[in-house]
Parts: sequence; structure tokens; C-alpha cells
Amino acid sequence: MGLPEIRPEDDLPGMLAERARAQGMAPGDVLVVAHKAVSKAEGRLVALGSVRPGAAARALAARTGKDPALCELILSESRRIVRQRGGTVIVETHHGFVCANAGIDASNVAPGQVALLPRDPDASARRIQARLAGALGGRVGVVVTDTHGRAFRRGLVNVAIGVAGFVGLVDLRGGVDRGGRLLVASDQALADELAAAAGMLMAKAGGTPAVAVSGVSTRPSPGGAGALVRDPAADLFREPGGPAAPR
Amino acid sequence: MGLPEIRPEDDLPGMLAERARAQGMAPGDVLVVAHKAVSKAEGRLVALGSVRPGAAARALAARTGKDPALCELILSESRRIVRQRGGTVIVETHHGFVCANAGIDASNVAPGQVALLPRDPDASARRIQARLAGALGGRVGVVVTDTHGRAFRRGLVNVAIGVAGFVGLVDLRGGVDRGGRLLVASDQALADELAAAAGMLMAKAGGTPAVAVSGVSTRPSPGGAGALVRDPAADLFREPGGPAAPR
Repeated sequence: MGLPEIRPEDDLPGMLAERARAQGMAPGDVLVVAHKAVSKAEGRLVALGSVRPGAAARALAARTGKDPALCELILSESRRIVRQRGGTVIVETHHGFVCANAGIDASNVAPGQVALLPRDPDASARRIQARLAGALGGRVGVVVTDTHGRAFRRGLVNVAIGVAGFVGLVDLRGGVDRGGRLLVASDQALADELAAAAGMLMAKAGGTPAVAVSGVSTRPSPGGAGALVRDPAADLFREPGGPAAPR
Repeated sequence: MGLPEIRPEDDLPGMLAERARAQGMAPGDVLVVAHKAVSKAEGRLVALGSVRPGAAARALAARTGKDPALCELILSESRRIVRQRGGTVIVETHHGFVCANAGIDASNVAPGQVALLPRDPDASARRIQARLAGALGGRVGVVVTDTHGRAFRRGLVNVAIGVAGFVGLVDLRGGVDRGGRLLVASDQALADELAAAAGMLMAKAGGTPAVAVSGVSTRPSPGGAGALVRDPAADLFREPGGPAAPR
């Protein structure tokens, strides 16, 4: 669904609820929302000119060729740098997401500004979820997304950084295959599948910030994208104890 | 779309073309097919009892607690082991995919058997694509999928291991955002988004091996899933020169 340009203090949940009702979204459906709209409504926009880069940011800028002010924001939004090579900076955000540049980006915001990720995307998703549920008269699911790169594979995909109203990681263990054999070690990343599906319809140029998905069965739950984040200690590709990002 | 149990030598492209036509699939649509059906039709089933584990496989079995015959198959299907901890074995397959157990699995096959990945999933996709295009009278896209785990995130998602008929990795560089600013470093992993979207509808219990997707714009191309595989030398999470898998 389309939205006008979102500004800080805009009532994004109300705007989405109005459109969801007008477009016939129904209980059981899932609304997938690009975080950029959420970040704007929540005032997570920063003018790079207002940022004073510290010593660590200046050092990162020298290593990467990036704007020192952007580096200051990347570091302040991160727990630690996971990998850095050339201009590529992969961090673990304070939320726990592993992504480039702490999810900060400059597309579709005013010149000189950048958008940070929502401070608590699950809370953002819950606020949207509550308004949609009220407007539509029943439970819906909400996913807030960001586009991430991946290890091993090229190209960006939308993933879930906020989840509300349904089980985002579906435990299939204990199920049986068609031969009656127990399925093991099968968790389905349903919230990420929903995010990726919606990503096909969200023009990367920024024109489609929200997509309603129907026909996908979900189980009621408070939600939470944390279920989709692998514990760093259990992650074979993120050695623990890397360089801590200065706060 | 549903299919009967697939056996070696079954004409899977013909079966899919017949169902695609019956169900109203149209030129421009994309058919997403789970590799298990392809592997079965192409005879990529192996009875574990027929496998003689070599020394390397027996050593891997001792380290992982896995069946030595399965370990022999994992090694013979792989270029190298990327990570191993406990019972988890992440390899780079001969195709270049980084995944657990070389994509070998035992669900929905006869007891004592396992299914290997198709030898050349792009060729499998092209064969299906050609039959569909003939039956439907125009270009369609085809994606052959497997479910993979991910670094950093929990849960499995469907990804593309074979692509035919369309551009699976869409280069958005040179496009502009709504403010007219150039988008940089944006490749969209469209084939993986299609795979993930279809994954929501493919019952993990194995009942829905193929899903037709319409309404997603694709650009004609021979295809090829290799476009979605990151060059190991450019991959920050796969150190080059790890232990080579014995052949």
C-alpha cells in the first residue's frame, strides 16, 4: 500500500490502519512494513552535519573512506564490528542484528540526512499491530523489515527486524514427514519469508513501504524478532569477543 | 501445485507443465520447485547401505556422531568443509553453495535412502523452463530451491539453487531513489525472494513441491543460480583455503 512522505510525529500506525481497512485487509493477514517509514515517523533521522565524530569514528573513516560522521553513527548504533574490509563495515547492532553500516542509510531521506533503524523495532511492530487489530476487529501479524546482505550469497533480501502478533520462527521439530519419520532440526524462519516475499513488491526506489500478505497461516504470539537472531555463542560465523564498538 | 510421489525416470518437467497449464499459469509467471522432486526424478537417491565410507568419512563420523555412510556422501558432494562443530557440518558444495550436510537429507524419501542435490540444478531448471514455455506459449521463470540455514539468523529459508528464464540477481545500481539520488551497491536477490515466498506455501512435510508465483516482474535471461553465489574470495565470512574435502 502507498503512503505519503512520512514525517517525524506522523501517526504511522493510524495511517496504516486506515489504509489496511480501506484495502480490505482481514484478521489473520500479515502487514509487512519497511523500517524506513517507521524510522521517519519515530524521528530516527540525523543530519550528518550535526554529528561530531570521535577518535574511533575518525579512525574507521580513514580505514573505510566513509564520512566520519556516518562512522560515528555506525559505531554508536553498534555493539561491535564483526567484519571490516575496504568500505564494507559489518556490525552487530544493539538489537543483535548483523548487517552493514548498522542499517543506517541515506536513500529516500532529505539530502544531508540519514535514517537509523528504529530503536526497538518489535515495539514499533506492536504499536502498528495494536492499531491494525483494533481497526480490523481481529488479530493480524506485523513485520518490520530491513534489507540485509548475506554471508555466502550475493544480493540483498528483506528480513524481519520487528515482529508482532504471530510466531516468527516456527518450530517444526516433532512434526513428521510424509513417510511418518520425525523431522529434526527444522525451524522455519516464517517472518523472514514474509519479509522476503514483500520485498519483491516493495519498489527499492521507496514507493511501496507496506505490503499486506494473506493466505499464510500464522500462530498467535506476542512475537519478537529476537527469536530469529542466532545467539552469537552458537554462531559458527561470528567469532565471539571481536573488537567492541566504543559508545 | 501437488504431485504424486516422484520416482526416478519420471518426466517431472512434463508433469509440471501439465499441471501449470491446468492451473492457469501464464507467461511471465515463475514456477518455484523444491529440489527434492527434481532429485528424485533425476535418480539422485542413494541407499546408505550401498556406500563404503573411506577414512576421511569415518573420521568425520567420529567427530560428528553422524552415520559414516552419510559422511562419505557429504564429503563426495563437497569441495570443502567450511565449518564443523559437534554434529553441524557446513560445507561448500561442488556447485558453490554453502549449506549444512551438502544439502543431503533423508526426509520424504524411502527408509535407508537419502536424496542428494541435483547434479546441475540450473540445467534442471532449464529443462523445466523449456517444457513450461512450450506448454504455456511464452516465457516463464523457474526456480529450483533448497532450504538453507543462515549465518547470524535462526531458522531455515528457501533459497534458489537453480534459476532459468529470468534475471535472478537484479542490479539496481544506477537507479535513483525518490529524491533523485543514485542508489549504490544494491543488488536484489530476486530469485531468493521468490524461493522464500514459495517456501511459506511448501508444507515442510513435503506435500507441496511446486508453487506458481504471478504478479512479480522479471527480466528475461537464461538465468543461473551462480549469480547469487558470492565469490569465496570476496566473502568476509568464508576464509579462503580452509580444509579441502577429500574426493
